[in-house]
Order: sequence, then C-alpha cells, then structure tokens
Amino acid sequence: MANNHHKEVLDRLRRIEGQVRGIQKMVEEERYCIEVLTVLRSVVAALGKVEELILRRHLETCVSGAMRSGSVKEQDEKIDEVMQILSQFRR
Amino acid sequence: MANNHHKEVLDRLRRIEGQVRGIQKMVEEERYCIEVLTVLRSVVAALGKVEELILRRHLETCVSGAMRSGSVKEQDEKIDEVMQILSQFRR
Amino acid sequence: MANNHHKEVLDRLRRIEGQVRGIQKMVEEERYCIEVLTVLRSVVAALGKVEELILRRHLETCVSGAMRSGSVKEQDEKIDEVMQILSQFRR
Amino acid sequence: MANNHHKEVLDRLRRIEGQVRGIQKMVEEERYCIEVLTVLRSVVAALGKVEELILRRHLETCVSGAMRSGSVKEQDEKIDEVMQILSQFRR
Repeated sequence: MANNHHKEVLDRLRRIEGQVRGIQKMVEEERYCIEVLTVLRSVVAALGKVEELILRRHLETCVSGAMRSGSVKEQDEKIDEVMQILSQFRR
Repeated sequence: MANNHHKEVLDRLRRIEGQVRGIQKMVEEERYCIEVLTVLRSVVAALGKVEELILRRHLETCVSGAMRSGSVKEQDEKIDEVMQILSQFRR
Repeated sequence: MANNHHKEVLDRLRRIEGQVRGIQKMVEEERYCIEVLTVLRSVVAALGKVEELILRRHLETCVSGAMRSGSVKEQDEKIDEVMQILSQFRR
Repeated sequence: MANNHHKEVLDRLRRIEGQVRGIQKMVEEERYCIEVLTVLRSVVAALGKVEELILRRHLETCVSGAMRSGSVKEQDEKIDEVMQILSQFRR
C-alpha cells in the first residue's frame, strides 16, 4: 500500500511538472491571459489533490500511531502539526 | 476546559453576528464597495478562526479517542470525516 | 437595478446573520463538531457569494467608470484596489 | 514593460517547475509528510503570485482597453471573464 501511495503521488507530481512547463510555453506564445489563468488554477487544484493524499496518509499512519502508543506530549505535537498545516491550507 | 472552549467559540460567534449586522448597515448607508468587501473578508477570517478552534478540539477529543480505543472501522470513519472537512476548507 | 442589487445583498446578509445565530445554538446544544463545521463552511460559502455580488457591481460601476473617464492615476488606483481585494480572497 | 512582465512570469514558473521536481525527490527519499506538505504549500503560494501578476496585467491592458473603447457587450464579457476567474480563486 505504501508503494501504491508513493507511486500515485509521484505520478501526479510529474504530471503537474509537465503542466507547469506547458504554462511557460503558453506565456512564450502570448496566449490569452484568461486561458493561462485557467490552466494555472487547474495546477493549483492538482497540487491540492496531492496535499490531500499526503495528509490522509499522514493521519492514517503517523498521527494514528501517536494516538495509539505515543506519550501525551507526542500526541499534542502531532495535533499541533496537523493544525499548522490546516491553517496554511487557507492561504 | 470544555467550558472555556465553548465560551470562546460562543463569544467569537456573537462578535461575528454583530459584524454581519454592521455590514448590513454599511450596505444600507451605501458605503464604498471596497470598504464593505474589506469588512466581509475580516468576517470570513473570524469564521476561519472559529473553525480552527472547533477542529482542534475535535482532533484532541473525538479523533484521538477513536485512535486510542476505537475499532479500525471507527478510526477510518474519523479520518474520513476530517478529510472531508479539510477538502471543504479549500472552497 | 441598484435597488435590486442592494435588496439581494441585504437579504443574503440577513440569512447569514440567522445562520450564525443557529450555529451558536448548535454549540450550546453540544452538537457533533463535524455538523457544526459543515454549517460554518456553508456560512463562509454564503459570504463568498455576497463578496462576488459586491465585487461584480464594483467592476460594473466604479471600475468601468474610472476606465472610461477617469485620469490614468484614478484608473491605477481602481486596479490597485481590486488587486488588493483579490489577494485577500486567498486568505 | 511587456517584456519585463513576461520575463518575471517565466522566471517564476521555472522556479516553480524546479520546486515540483524537488518535491518528487523528497517523496522518493521518504521525507516526513509534514515537510513535504510545507513545500507543497509554498509552491501553491508561488503559483498564486504568478496568477496575481497575470491578472493585474490583464486588468491593466485587456479589461481597461475594453472599458475605454469597447462596446457594452465587450465590456460585459470582460467583467464576466474576470468574475469567473475570481470565483475559481476560492477553490
């Protein structure tokens, strides 16, 4: 399962890298701003999907591990980390 | 602690309710759009703060409780719920 | 048209005010966190809709007015204002 | 000025492309999820900056051009396009 997760994340990141290169080409070809902005938005959405995959796995492994067998201090640290990531999600 | 948490959430929600009423007054007085938009943004930020308070408490109580003593099924459900809330956070 | 716009914005703000009061009641009744978070998200979405209505009207009136008959300085100011609002939209 | 704008946008996109490749390496090296998520967030912020640069230029050129000398229909189209991009900004 870990391997499937890694593979999916890497596949998505490679596709995103290709999209970013595609946007560079659009800018060089002076394509209409609104078209470029639309593709930029789809790249941001694709990155958001990668973030969700990684965060879900983090909750399923590290966070639930700490909850089950970590000290109270470790549990608090995990929750703080998750909350920090979440508050960055709004930005 | 539960009482402090509740009190803080309720205080913030009452202040937000007052701000929403204040925006209605600004609209009635035909205040400049950009001013109204700025206050609207600060209300959205204040709601975001309330969401963070509630989510943090949810992680500290319900989610960590399920991780510690819930069945695998209950643990999965909690993680699914958190992930659903998080993906709504982007909207 | 200005009146319709005002009326729609005010109606929406009154409904949002009612929803914020409803959330206070949910918190007092100790409703499940995830339910409260879901309603909070719908209030944020409703505020987003109000922001869009006001911004659209601002573009249609003040901004397009400045573009048509304002000085270059006034035009630059309008664009700066819109860009500041937009960069706040991400937060 | 158009050239400076293009150069800045392209420089930023190339840096973003490099960051996306860097994240792939982090995933391959099994770096801690929270570190990966933090870098992903900084890429999203960098893309947001590119979006702002392009949108500002769009307002300064195409939109203000349509406001000054376009037909009412063209003006409405420009405003609709901007509003569509803005509502995507929330997602």
